[in-house]
This record gives sequence, structure tokens and C-alpha cells, in this order.
Amino acid sequence: MAEMKFKNPTGTQDLLPGTVEKWQFVEGKARDLCQRYNFREIRTPLFEQTELFERGVGETTDIVEKEMYTFKDKGDRSMTLRPEGTAGVVRAYVQNKLYGEPDVTKLYYIAPMFRYERPQAGRYRQFHQFGIEVFGAADPSIDAEVIALGYSFTKELGLSGVKVEINSVGTPEIRAAYRERLLSFLTPMKDQLCSDCQSRMDRNPLRVLDCKKDQDKFDGAPSILESLDEACSQHFEQVKAYLDAMEVNYEVNPRMVRGLDYYTHTAFEFKAQGIGAIDTVGGGGRYNGLVEQIGGPDQTGIGFGIGLERIMLILEHQSIELNAVKPLDVYLVALGEAAEKEITKIIFQLRSAGISAERDYQGRKMKAQMKSADRLQARYTAILGDDELAKGEIALKSMETGEQRTVRLDELHRELG
Amino acid sequence: MAEMKFKNPTGTQDLLPGTVEKWQFVEGKARDLCQRYNFREIRTPLFEQTELFERGVGETTDIVEKEMYTFKDKGDRSMTLRPEGTAGVVRAYVQNKLYGEPDVTKLYYIAPMFRYERPQAGRYRQFHQFGIEVFGAADPSIDAEVIALGYSFTKELGLSGVKVEINSVGTPEIRAAYRERLLSFLTPMKDQLCSDCQSRMDRNPLRVLDCKKDQDKFDGAPSILESLDEACSQHFEQVKAYLDAMEVNYEVNPRMVRGLDYYTHTAFEFKAQGIGAIDTVGGGGRYNGLVEQIGGPDQTGIGFGIGLERIMLILEHQSIELNAVKPLDVYLVALGEAAEKEITKIIFQLRSAGISAERDYQGRKMKAQMKSADRLQARYTAILGDDELAKGEIALKSMETGEQRTVRLDELHRELG
Repeated sequence: MAEMKFKNPTGTQDLLPGTVEKWQFVEGKARDLCQRYNFREIRTPLFEQTELFERGVGETTDIVEKEMYTFKDKGDRSMTLRPEGTAGVVRAYVQNKLYGEPDVTKLYYIAPMFRYERPQAGRYRQFHQFGIEVFGAADPSIDAEVIALGYSFTKELGLSGVKVEINSVGTPEIRAAYRERLLSFLTPMKDQLCSDCQSRMDRNPLRVLDCKKDQDKFDGAPSILESLDEACSQHFEQVKAYLDAMEVNYEVNPRMVRGLDYYTHTAFEFKAQGIGAIDTVGGGGRYNGLVEQIGGPDQTGIGFGIGLERIMLILEHQSIELNAVKPLDVYLVALGEAAEKEITKIIFQLRSAGISAERDYQGRKMKAQMKSADRLQARYTAILGDDELAKGEIALKSMETGEQRTVRLDELHRELG
Repeated sequence: MAEMKFKNPTGTQDLLPGTVEKWQFVEGKARDLCQRYNFREIRTPLFEQTELFERGVGETTDIVEKEMYTFKDKGDRSMTLRPEGTAGVVRAYVQNKLYGEPDVTKLYYIAPMFRYERPQAGRYRQFHQFGIEVFGAADPSIDAEVIALGYSFTKELGLSGVKVEINSVGTPEIRAAYRERLLSFLTPMKDQLCSDCQSRMDRNPLRVLDCKKDQDKFDGAPSILESLDEACSQHFEQVKAYLDAMEVNYEVNPRMVRGLDYYTHTAFEFKAQGIGAIDTVGGGGRYNGLVEQIGGPDQTGIGFGIGLERIMLILEHQSIELNAVKPLDVYLVALGEAAEKEITKIIFQLRSAGISAERDYQGRKMKAQMKSADRLQARYTAILGDDELAKGEIALKSMETGEQRTVRLDELHRELG
């Protein structure tokens, strides 16, 4: 048979032991925070009908135009691997009529997403997001709560330089009027702007002000905050007052608008001290029209998505060690033929009693086995010889203190518990 | 805008709060067991190049011929959503040279898989498996350990009627010889067999004996166990002896061969008291040739996959209640304008101190809020009026005993901790 070398697809990762425990730790932190904030998990399918994303993300966005994994299933229906988390959650919220419940709906997800992009540091074609969505609450206190949860996530992981940038993007009507004022400002300088800005001017002029290259040209540009009406301004002021009360480190950035068209009122981004320009770990905003757009009732929504690959990259960059690998309770060593036969049963009983235990399976020498015990950070090694076995005993050695004593085999799980 | 009704794709599920906690519980049990057995998690991409599954699962299997979600990516490469878990893990094991490590490689995964099948009870197009794989250990004690882990998983979930069926399917050479003997037995009766059996006779005659319809016709059929050589028989005898020592409830079924071609030596299925014929929750076996087939060195392998949708279905059928939803620590009620402003900060501080806490966001009356506290199984409610706030106090009521007392606001997190 010809030699084959299979590789993982470009832009994907294998998460192996040693790395995967860091992911477990970060995800555990997300779950723990959601438990405290009374968010409950939702899991939607990995793929949805393509039209959902065209409707829910926006047909003219880069995501829908260029980046989706779209395919025909065997029933000739167009399906797409989800490129983001919100559309599927909104679809599930509407389809399952969760809006009929008396309480505000507070959901979270930790899930893979797929975008066909050029792979680069911290950006993958299969990537993972921790996201939350709240439906049915228009009060600014929930905007502050959503921001506080994401902020606490980055803080509690130990990241430094954590900051939130916030803005209000108003209502679609306010944004349409502001768009005209902004175009009047930008059009005379169009030739001097970078090519990205020029193409954004046609598609989504609000994003032009976000450009890193052309910042110095935008002094005197109209601000969306000055375009807000009374209700929008008040909402934004209250969000800021709550963030002040919670001592969240935030900054107002009137030029930050996020990539998606559906945001209303509050928009925000989570930052941490990163690698040059790579400092945004996630963001989100209010999307009060989206539920209706997906075919549901007029219910408000707000949420965020945080990129876990980005979090892992910045944790590494900041040299933050997560205490993620759990040590082993005991490594069992068998010496002699009878002991080797018996060890399979003994280790089964220990594990059934809740003890984490390991052994050798390859007939290696004692020295090699002790090295394995070290690698696994075993708290104890237990050495079973044929003589001890005959007496119903085993030698138990603490790997921390070096102290060794003999215990009865039927007491072993209690000694280790 | 026209009314749209989006639905999840046929054969997929939304896992909503109330259900998702049962999944979390079952997955937590799997992770806990893997920790005790010293298995570590691996995560491989959701899709792989199509050829990997053609090579790793078998080009003539139903999975590869009929059931795969295969698509061209934007780089015109043929990709497939993984239809099973083993091929990707073997690919990652080979690519990342995990065989170079001194210890036996023990991996687990909990992950979605995709097969385009006709949806029916407990069978979905996106389904989820808990699986383990062990590389580099040929000893029969590891066969017994793998079986014991899956068996303990079903037992510790509280399922009744748990049983393991085991068999030995020998080596490829033994199987080839047995195949001829079996065909000599089956060919004269071919016309009397069901259509499934007839087509299996051409493709995989060993699976014919697994047919539910034609069992009565197979008295006197040759048994694969009688075809084993000395080494295979000894291996199988030792596996049985270890299972006896561990008091695993097993049964030898010489007609059980599993659907995949790559098994060698031990094959097994996990059963539980189910709904009619739906009683298998998973299975697996040894696959000593697969690592080499995927382009790796000559390393042994063994593993299982357990279907989580099947587990959930049988848990429900057996009316097993999982104690899965965690109660809330405290529901905060604000009465009065000043208290309502202050509560956002207080609840943030409680949550930051590790307390799970909820509140109203919709300006509902106190009675509606108390009902929410009941629904969330809150241990306490804390009621903040403007008067209490002015004194720096809050009223704390135990929902279990009904006892109410006043505590200082800055002591609240300690009272609840």
C-alpha cells in the first residue's frame, strides 16, 4: 500500500493533551461565570440552511459574500457551517418559542464556527467562540450586565490591560441620517483614503472611521454620538453610569461600529494587552431588530462573542500559566507474575471508588514506571509485590515527602481518598 | 419584509435549557471517568480531507458510500464532516507523532459527528459520541480496561440491564479463511435470506450472522471463535479472565462483528435495557492495522464510541432523573427607585464573589419576581427597599425554611457563601 501522509485541513488545529487542558480551564471559567450570572447553555446545530445566515448576518457582509462553508446536502438543500453564533441562537429562540416564557431569556454557548479566511496568527477557519445572548430585556442594566460578564471573563483569566470600548450606534433611522452626514465629510477626501476605506465607503461608510491607516485624516469627522436622539442618549448614559458603579474599565470610542449591520444602541469591544494590533478578544452589541428579521416577534436582543483562539494566543503572549492539568492520585507498580495479574482488578476497584489511577501496560522495568509516575505528577505510587499480595498488603509511597508505609489492600482507596 | 419561518435542518436538534443540563451531566460523567482512568482529551477538526475517511473507515462501507457530508471547499479540495471519531484521532496521533512518547497513549473525545441517514428515534444526522482510543498497548489488560470504562459509564449513569457482548474477530488472515467457510455454509441458502443479508453476502458476509430476521436459519453456522489460532484464543481468554475479575457483566456473542472492517481480536458492544431492538448504546474493538493504514508506524489501537443521543433516549425510557440543574444562590428583589438603581452594582459584586444571583430586568411586580425565584429554585431571596438601602442593610429570606432576617449589605456575600 502506498505511503500516505494525512494532514489536518489548513486553518484547523488538533488540540492535544497538554494544550487541551488549557481550553478546558478557559471553558470552565466561562461556564462558571454563566452559572453565577444565571445564563443557561444552548446548543444549536453546526450547520443551518444557508438563507438563515443571508438573512441574519446580512447578504452584503464579507462573511456571507466570501467566507462561508456552503454545500448542498444529499437532499439538494443549501446548507452552511455556521460562520457565527447569533443567527442560529435567534432561530432556535424563535422556533422553540422561548419568548413565551415569563423570564428574560439568558443563553450562552461555547461552540465551533467556520469561516474560509486566510489563516494567520490567532485566526483559523475552524474557530471557537464563547458567546451569550439575552432576549426580552431593553433595560440599560442588561447592557451593563452583558459587558460586565465578558469583562469579568477576561479579568478572571488573569489577562492584563483589560479594557472595554463602548459606543452607541443608535437606531437604523439615526444611523441612516448619520451615514449621509459622514459621506458628505468623506467624499471630498475619497481619493486620499486607502483602498479598504474606499470600498467601505460604498458598502458600509460607518466602518471607514475604524480604519487604522487613515485615523489622522478623520479629525473633525461628525460623531455618531452627536447624532443620537434623546432616548438613545439616555440609554447610553445609563449604561455608562452602571459600568462606573461596577468599576468596569471602559472607554467611549465613537468611531467603533463593529462589522455587523444589525446592531442598535450599545456596541462594545473587549480588549487586552496583545501582540501589536491583535488586542481585541471579542465584542458585541444590542440587536433590537434581529429577532423580527428572523421571523420572530418584536423582542429585543443583546449579546457578545469572544474568540477563544484569540484568548489562548494572548494568554500565551502574556505568559499566563493556567493551573490546568489535574495530578494523578496514584501510580500502581506490580512486581512479579501474580501481582501483574492482580493489578488489573485492583486498579479497576480504585477507579470505581473515585480515585484517579494509572499503571504500566507494556511490561516496562520499575525505573521506567517510576518516571511515568513523575510525568503524571502522581501524589502516590503504590508498589505491589507477590509477597505483599499474599499478605493482602501494598507499599504506599508519598511522592511529595518520600515517606513509605504498608497499607492493607482493602484500605487502599480510603488511604488515597 | 416577507414572513420567514426558519427551522433547524432535518435530523438535527436544538438542545435548550432544561435538556442541555442533562447533556452536561452525562458529559461530566464521561470526563470524570476519563480522569480516573487517566485518559486525556483530544479535539480534532470537525472536517477532514475526504480521503482520510475512505482510507480509515473503508471505501465499501455504507458510511463512506452513502452517508457522508462531503463538499468542496473554496480551494476546490474535497472535505467531509467527520462521520465517526476514530479516523481523525488516528490521523492526529500519526501527524503529531504521539507514538514517540514513552507512555501508552490514552485519549478521549466528546464530539459531534455527521451522517446523512434517515432520521428515526435516537438516530440523527448530527449526533454526538463519547469515544476513547488507546495506542501502543497490545496487552489484553487494556482491552479489559477499555471495556470496563464504557461499562462503568453506563452503570454509573444508573442505567439498568447493562451488559457487554464480546467476541474475537481474529486477524485479517483468520477472518479471510473464516469468510470462505462461512460463504460455503451460506451460499446454499442464499435465496431464503432477506435482501439485506443477500447484499451483505457480497460485501461483508461476517455481518450476515448479525441479522435479526434470519437468526433461526443460522444453527450450525461455523463460529469465528473456532477459527482462531492459539495466540488469538489466548488473548481472548485473558480478556475474559480480566472481565471476570472486574465483575463486568458480559456475554460472548460469536455472531457479533460490528460494522467496520478494521477490527482485530476483541470486538464488543454495550447494551442496556432499551426500547425493543434499540438496546445498543455503543461499541468498539481493537484495530491493530489501522495506524499503519493511515500512514503511521506499526502501532496497535483499541477504542469505543458511545452514542450520546442513544444514552439520552434510554435514560428517558428508563425514567432516570439526572440531578442536573444547579439551584440559584439568591434572587434579588429591589423595591423603590434608589434600590432599583443600586441593585445592578450589588448583583455584580455578589457574582464577582462567586455567588450565583439573579434579578428582574423588566420592572415586574414583587409577586412575579417571587415566582421567578421559585422557578429558579433560589436558596434565598434578598429584598432591598429604599429604607434598608439608606441603612446599608438588606432583608434575607431562606426559601427552604421561610426564616427572614436583616443583614448588612457588605456582609451579604459571606452570608450566602
